[in-house]
Amino acid sequence: MLGNTFGRMFRVTTCGESYGKALAALCDGVPPGLELCDADIQEELDKRRPGQSAIDSPRQETDQVQIFSGMRDGYTTGAPVGMIIYNVDTLPQHVKEYEDAKDLIRPGHAEYTYRIKYGDYVDWCGAGRASGRETAARVAAGAVAKKILAREGIKVVAYVKKLMDIEADVSRLSFDEREQNSLKNEIFCPDLETAEQMIEYTKRVKDEGDTVGGVVEILAVGVPPGLGEPVFDKLSAGLAHALMSIQAVKGCEIGAGFAATMMKGSECNDIPYMKDGKIRFRTNNSGGMDGGISNGEDIIARIAVKPTSTISIAQPTVNMTTMQEADLAAITRRDATICGRICAVAAAMTRITILDHLMMWRGYDAVSGIEHKLGW
Amino acid sequence: MLGNTFGRMFRVTTCGESYGKALAALCDGVPPGLELCDADIQEELDKRRPGQSAIDSPRQETDQVQIFSGMRDGYTTGAPVGMIIYNVDTLPQHVKEYEDAKDLIRPGHAEYTYRIKYGDYVDWCGAGRASGRETAARVAAGAVAKKILAREGIKVVAYVKKLMDIEADVSRLSFDEREQNSLKNEIFCPDLETAEQMIEYTKRVKDEGDTVGGVVEILAVGVPPGLGEPVFDKLSAGLAHALMSIQAVKGCEIGAGFAATMMKGSECNDIPYMKDGKIRFRTNNSGGMDGGISNGEDIIARIAVKPTSTISIAQPTVNMTTMQEADLAAITRRDATICGRICAVAAAMTRITILDHLMMWRGYDAVSGIEHKLGW
Amino acid sequence: MLGNTFGRMFRVTTCGESYGKALAALCDGVPPGLELCDADIQEELDKRRPGQSAIDSPRQETDQVQIFSGMRDGYTTGAPVGMIIYNVDTLPQHVKEYEDAKDLIRPGHAEYTYRIKYGDYVDWCGAGRASGRETAARVAAGAVAKKILAREGIKVVAYVKKLMDIEADVSRLSFDEREQNSLKNEIFCPDLETAEQMIEYTKRVKDEGDTVGGVVEILAVGVPPGLGEPVFDKLSAGLAHALMSIQAVKGCEIGAGFAATMMKGSECNDIPYMKDGKIRFRTNNSGGMDGGISNGEDIIARIAVKPTSTISIAQPTVNMTTMQEADLAAITRRDATICGRICAVAAAMTRITILDHLMMWRGYDAVSGIEHKLGW
Amino acid sequence: MLGNTFGRMFRVTTCGESYGKALAALCDGVPPGLELCDADIQEELDKRRPGQSAIDSPRQETDQVQIFSGMRDGYTTGAPVGMIIYNVDTLPQHVKEYEDAKDLIRPGHAEYTYRIKYGDYVDWCGAGRASGRETAARVAAGAVAKKILAREGIKVVAYVKKLMDIEADVSRLSFDEREQNSLKNEIFCPDLETAEQMIEYTKRVKDEGDTVGGVVEILAVGVPPGLGEPVFDKLSAGLAHALMSIQAVKGCEIGAGFAATMMKGSECNDIPYMKDGKIRFRTNNSGGMDGGISNGEDIIARIAVKPTSTISIAQPTVNMTTMQEADLAAITRRDATICGRICAVAAAMTRITILDHLMMWRGYDAVSGIEHKLGW
Repeated sequence: MLGNTFGRMFRVTTCGESYGKALAALCDGVPPGLELCDADIQEELDKRRPGQSAIDSPRQETDQVQIFSGMRDGYTTGAPVGMIIYNVDTLPQHVKEYEDAKDLIRPGHAEYTYRIKYGDYVDWCGAGRASGRETAARVAAGAVAKKILAREGIKVVAYVKKLMDIEADVSRLSFDEREQNSLKNEIFCPDLETAEQMIEYTKRVKDEGDTVGGVVEILAVGVPPGLGEPVFDKLSAGLAHALMSIQAVKGCEIGAGFAATMMKGSECNDIPYMKDGKIRFRTNNSGGMDGGISNGEDIIARIAVKPTSTISIAQPTVNMTTMQEADLAAITRRDATICGRICAVAAAMTRITILDHLMMWRGYDAVSGIEHKLGW
Repeated sequence: MLGNTFGRMFRVTTCGESYGKALAALCDGVPPGLELCDADIQEELDKRRPGQSAIDSPRQETDQVQIFSGMRDGYTTGAPVGMIIYNVDTLPQHVKEYEDAKDLIRPGHAEYTYRIKYGDYVDWCGAGRASGRETAARVAAGAVAKKILAREGIKVVAYVKKLMDIEADVSRLSFDEREQNSLKNEIFCPDLETAEQMIEYTKRVKDEGDTVGGVVEILAVGVPPGLGEPVFDKLSAGLAHALMSIQAVKGCEIGAGFAATMMKGSECNDIPYMKDGKIRFRTNNSGGMDGGISNGEDIIARIAVKPTSTISIAQPTVNMTTMQEADLAAITRRDATICGRICAVAAAMTRITILDHLMMWRGYDAVSGIEHKLGW
Repeated sequence: MLGNTFGRMFRVTTCGESYGKALAALCDGVPPGLELCDADIQEELDKRRPGQSAIDSPRQETDQVQIFSGMRDGYTTGAPVGMIIYNVDTLPQHVKEYEDAKDLIRPGHAEYTYRIKYGDYVDWCGAGRASGRETAARVAAGAVAKKILAREGIKVVAYVKKLMDIEADVSRLSFDEREQNSLKNEIFCPDLETAEQMIEYTKRVKDEGDTVGGVVEILAVGVPPGLGEPVFDKLSAGLAHALMSIQAVKGCEIGAGFAATMMKGSECNDIPYMKDGKIRFRTNNSGGMDGGISNGEDIIARIAVKPTSTISIAQPTVNMTTMQEADLAAITRRDATICGRICAVAAAMTRITILDHLMMWRGYDAVSGIEHKLGW
Repeated sequence: MLGNTFGRMFRVTTCGESYGKALAALCDGVPPGLELCDADIQEELDKRRPGQSAIDSPRQETDQVQIFSGMRDGYTTGAPVGMIIYNVDTLPQHVKEYEDAKDLIRPGHAEYTYRIKYGDYVDWCGAGRASGRETAARVAAGAVAKKILAREGIKVVAYVKKLMDIEADVSRLSFDEREQNSLKNEIFCPDLETAEQMIEYTKRVKDEGDTVGGVVEILAVGVPPGLGEPVFDKLSAGLAHALMSIQAVKGCEIGAGFAATMMKGSECNDIPYMKDGKIRFRTNNSGGMDGGISNGEDIIARIAVKPTSTISIAQPTVNMTTMQEADLAAITRRDATICGRICAVAAAMTRITILDHLMMWRGYDAVSGIEHKLGW
């Protein structure tokens, strides 16, 4: 397996599986002098922790994190920050259930592709490394990035914008309202009335044994202009990479996104104007980046989250050992939707990406020595 | 500037600007013994070459490519393949036009973000490195990847699926029909009747001085299961990175994509079954990948292409030197849509990404020594 | 801090400090199906563990490692292998000693450069991340590589070749003898008589309060021809990078190394001949690589290990807070030489490098499809 | 082939072979606003150009370079700088000579390992990509780095320190004297008297049909403290990687290097003291870096250059097609030593490495926000 490291200057490496002993996240590139404690990480982990509501998986994981390196007397030292989360809810009866069904492909899951890739030694328990549990390590790393970005005045929030066809109206909500409101309900939707509808709908679908997906929106404010590298490493490309690497994400768009394909150029172009000595834009169809480089406006991205693959309805499938068609029984331990829990992961990946680009840019910029920054 | 290299095992590096002397692409990781000639590259370059139809930019670039390294007697040697394309249509009057307007932000373009990043020494001519002209080098590199993939039985095509709200029906067309038909018209749409409507509509919009966007679909066939690395380097993430790095692309989706958010789990899950000794899937909402790893089905991606930013209508803007609001005159030398021309670029980036992942997987797999591959 | 990840296909990331809670090593790229247990790692760790002899540091670290990810039922799954080693000998009195002297540069150590780089928040305790303790994580990762390489018939040993001017004669010793003999004494020298002289000399120097360096030789057997990438990523360059990244290493040479500068071309050139259907070389001045690519002969490298910087003799220095010259008292808790303990680290880094190159080559080769391998 | 890109923030990619059409170097990470012209590159290229003296290869290459991207009106724009050098002395008779002998391993060269790796399609002409001709592209890239470093007050020179057992005394020569003197003779030795002995000796060896190697020393002045990343990416490791990637280099050492193994700790430790408000060191056994991070003193490295493998004496060898032993005739078109010409390459690689580390550090440092730098 490759691909367990992300980023060039702020570099995150993770490991751990659903039913392994522990998950870990190592953050390289953390500056010294950052006040940091386990509770800072815990706050973010708690946003994606399972077992907290009727629509989440009933798995009970405390997700207690321990920072074990990179610290001295409560401050980061510049050395890589290592964090470990021991799994606790890995009872033998659950392992047994997975073992009994280990040859069956669960539709929508990765058993088949992992078996192709890793053969019979693949970790068959609870999806192993392919499990959403892996994202706890991402969230831990993102929590470190969050604190560094805070020093730069950069804030990121992710929330459920749409669940099936139920759409939230967030247009009049400030960043802080979006952040605070989304914490007030189990679906992470800042439009509180719509949130209730979403939850009610999700419960109904859950009772049918089924699951539901939706659209999560990510908003980053305070990002200075200049982040993103031309050509292959545009900020848009980096964000898309980061967000599409999250399980269940099937699409990603920036700014107007797919809606831009229904506009003419004269509608889509964001018109610049002067405001408080800076160049700003009257609209934000670009989602805060031109030519893949941040332009000082809010960064807006949205991801398509597919309905959870684990359903409580029997499905036809194939047994990978006998190579015969077979039946997969209904599974009860599951999330009715992961739209809410994925918000913490999407925010984490966005923070990691923005910080990585910020550091790359700063290195380039410090050598360039450009002084005049158009008012910034 | 960073970010001019893409890929880990098949690694492409490019340089060159819209009005510089030349563009170049260097491909590292090319295997030896591949029959290759300038004409192979030219064939792909001709698909994105400007000045070929009424809806394209009238700029006349011959895009003549010369392979200058990595070859001996018509075959690749394993050394990096270097390719150079000299710019020809860089007449002083065009340079003069750009120089006169160099302080003005062209809405939707990258002048502002480049000026922030590179200061007064930025290349103001024809968008410099931010120009779509840069993509000629990507297409050249993709042509090399195309030939290597052909030996593996992997083929990729990209075509216009939707222009504004005009949608093509490609459901009954084979891969070859999609490829051949899309070459028959200037909009690269394989549904020939719809193509005519698209072209007609584009001309009408062009006459208004405006531009139009759309959706390009990418189809890859013959990709074996196993490509894509768990967690951060999923094939989906790699493709999203590659495709979102193309100018004007504002969104990307795999398989059902955003439509998956309107399905329940029981609808969205692709059901596996046995066919000819292999495991296949009855539907392909996953777009050919589970857990971010290819599953043997067709790989399907779509990108949202915004309407060309350059319009032939005057627009308000800001002068970056005076920091005053100003007017930008209508610009006539432009593409009415880039949906057609971008197809060659999208196919190129997809090929590069798939080949890179193929090589990563092969290296891992050869060390793993897994023999049983579920019929593959 | 950057730079805590090494390798492209077999990728090792580490964290942890001398007096932090724990050290960790994450190995990405581990194939599935490898039988692996804590004891496999422990065996290598024990070779560099301190406190085992009169010439080592008296620090008592048990170096108990726990593999916490990437495993199922005793076999690797292909997921990244995470390993953690909790520090135990971090008693308050030792921390206090370091705190009292934290502003003083210990000559030969990295306090000054770390203070420049990380400011006042740097980890001042026991050299923090700069400590040789960091190498325990490298050894853990190298132990994983060792097991993978064993499946390929590749073996690596490192031993003390020379201590000050006392030189071992290993010419008549087989690989196995070099490995077994070097474990028989506390200086890791396979020439047992010379080992005794080395140890005696080291004790004498230790009694003077001083320290001693030497030359460690690394021998890799069973490496097939073909490893190493032309130009920037030659196997020689990769090995030099890996070995020179170890603390206290001031030089590195391959094959005849610096002695080659005293030969004429006609002496230095290794003459090829046929043996058992394969091309072999009569001498091995090249150290097993031509053009930076392995040629099937033994790979031989040597590193220059400087005398341990920590000495039990008072030294003049500078106080970094007062920016005044000052005196550093004699330090008693120290290694009289690290030549012996560094062998395990050098072998680990060599294994990691060879495995990484092996995987890169296999990926390239599998796509190349070259069949005729000159008898290999 | 992989490995044709070097560096993380200042990133150089090259291609081209000995008898291909052209060599190219692409530099990514070049800041905007740098005055640069072909002549700047040419100046460095001329230092390694063949055919300039009695002891060099008689091959006549003008090495005329053309910068074809990344420029506007004589200044860099921040876009990658592309440079191309067309080969000229590739006459059919030389190609024919190589073709006739293409199955024979030339001892000391890379034919065998390339054939293993690239099969029958390998470029057999003039060593192809393995040729020292490849280094022209490195020198071109290094010339760009040189100009950027000059703005930072960093200067690098490389010169021949020792040829066989003839050693230059450079101890009383300033940086400028070393640079200027080394240009005054064909062996690039700043000790002018010794240079004459070296040249005379080389000519004598050449008359015997043989070749000679030596030690090249690299000196970098003006490097601020702080460059180099702890653990795997120490500046020492980066330099070793860069220098050992050059053809014919069999060893590398920093500061006292292998001589440090003959010192006791009390001799080897560099003692810090205060000078002009900064911390400096009384000796420089460390070669300007502690813990792998630059300490503000001169950076000193040395490389072992083996005698040129091409000799004008017949040698036994093997024919790779017949797999029979064979004879290789004397070869006349060759360098009697490459010690002189390699200096430009070693300086180039050192500059690229230092600049890359400078940019990495600046990016990290700008995010860290450490203000107090101990007087720097």
